[in-house]
Amino acid sequence: MVQIPEPAKERLLHLMRILEKNGSGPVTSGQVEGLTGWSSCTIRKDISYLGGDCGGNAVGSSCGYNPASLIPAIKKALGLDRCRRFCVVGLGRLGSAYLNFRPVELEEFELVAGFDINVNRVEIVKSPVPLYPAYKMANLIPRFFIEAAFLCVPEDAAQTAAEKLVSAGIRGILNFAPVVLTVPPEVAVRNVYVVDELRALSIRLST
Amino acid sequence: MVQIPEPAKERLLHLMRILEKNGSGPVTSGQVEGLTGWSSCTIRKDISYLGGDCGGNAVGSSCGYNPASLIPAIKKALGLDRCRRFCVVGLGRLGSAYLNFRPVELEEFELVAGFDINVNRVEIVKSPVPLYPAYKMANLIPRFFIEAAFLCVPEDAAQTAAEKLVSAGIRGILNFAPVVLTVPPEVAVRNVYVVDELRALSIRLST
Repeated sequence: MVQIPEPAKERLLHLMRILEKNGSGPVTSGQVEGLTGWSSCTIRKDISYLGGDCGGNAVGSSCGYNPASLIPAIKKALGLDRCRRFCVVGLGRLGSAYLNFRPVELEEFELVAGFDINVNRVEIVKSPVPLYPAYKMANLIPRFFIEAAFLCVPEDAAQTAAEKLVSAGIRGILNFAPVVLTVPPEVAVRNVYVVDELRALSIRLST
Repeated sequence: MVQIPEPAKERLLHLMRILEKNGSGPVTSGQVEGLTGWSSCTIRKDISYLGGDCGGNAVGSSCGYNPASLIPAIKKALGLDRCRRFCVVGLGRLGSAYLNFRPVELEEFELVAGFDINVNRVEIVKSPVPLYPAYKMANLIPRFFIEAAFLCVPEDAAQTAAEKLVSAGIRGILNFAPVVLTVPPEVAVRNVYVVDELRALSIRLST
C-alpha cells in the first residue's frame, strides 16, 4: 500500500464523505475548497497519492472528480475496501443504541457481537446480533476475527474493559466513555467525548 | 470577555479536560507537553489569555498549574461558567440514551426537554425530563431558554429538524445524524459522525 501522510489520510476520508453526500455527479476541486478550506493544490496532491488512474488524468480537476471512480480508489488506499468486524462492549442505553446502528456506509463494517459484564442484561437486551457475557471476550474476539470495539461502558469501568479487550487481541477501540484510556501503542483509540463536543459548541455560543 | 483565538480556545478546552482527569495535584507544562505535543511556550501563551492571576505568577509553570484555580479561570474565559440549557430532538434509541446522559461535568449543562415528531413515542419513552411532540419546539424552545439541541433524528429527517430548531431560535446543534447540515452562519454546529470515527480507526488498523 502507498505510504500516505496522516493529515492527507484525514483529508481523503473527509473528501470521501463529501463525494458520498454529493450524489453521482462530479465534484470540482473548487467545490471541495469551498466546503473544506483546503487549497486545490492540497486536494490534487492528496489525490495523487491514490495512484495513476485517479490523479489528474481520467478524472481531472477541470471536469471535476468522479465519485464513481474516486470513492473506491480512496477506500482501497486507506484500507477501507475490506469488511472489518466489530463488537459493542457495554449494553446500557448507549451500547444498546449502537447494536442497532445501521447507516448505509456501514457495509464496510460488520457488527458481530455484543458483550456486557451483566449476564442478566445479555439475556434481556433485544439485539440483531448475538450477545455474550464479558468473560467470553478473551475467547470470542479472536475466534470471530473481531478487530474493533465500541466501548460503551460507564466511566469507572472503561480502563478495565479496555485492558480486557487488548488482552483478547482487539486492535482498535472507539471510546465513548469520558476517560483517557491507557493502551499499548499498537492499539488504535478514537474518542467520542460528547461533553467535550457540547463544551466546544458552548464556546461558540459565547462569542 | 477577552478575545481568545479559536485554536487557543480548543487547546484550553483540552487542557481543562487534562486538569480535570488529573485529580487535585498541580500539572506542569512539561506534563501537558507530553500528553498533547504542544510546546510549553504555546501552553503559557494560551494561559496568558486568561488574565493576571492565572498567568505565570500564582500558578506558574515552575511549580505546575493548579487545577483548583486554573479550571474555573478557563471556564470563565470560555463562557462555560454559566449553565446552558439544552434539549434532545429525536427519541429513538440514541436520543433516548442521551436523555439519561449524566456525566459529572454536565453540571455546566442542563437538559430540560426532549422532542419527537412521533406523539406515541413521546408518551412511552421513559425520561427524567418532560417530553413533547416536535410541533411544540417553536413555542417551548424560547420559553424554556433552550440554547442547544442534541439532534438524534434519522438521517433523512435531520435537515428539516435542524431548520425547525433554527426557526425556534436554537443557537447550537450537536448533530449525530451523518448529514452535513445547512444552517445560518450564526448557528453553531458540531458533528458527531460515528461512521467517520470508525473509518478513522479503521485506517489506523491498516497501517
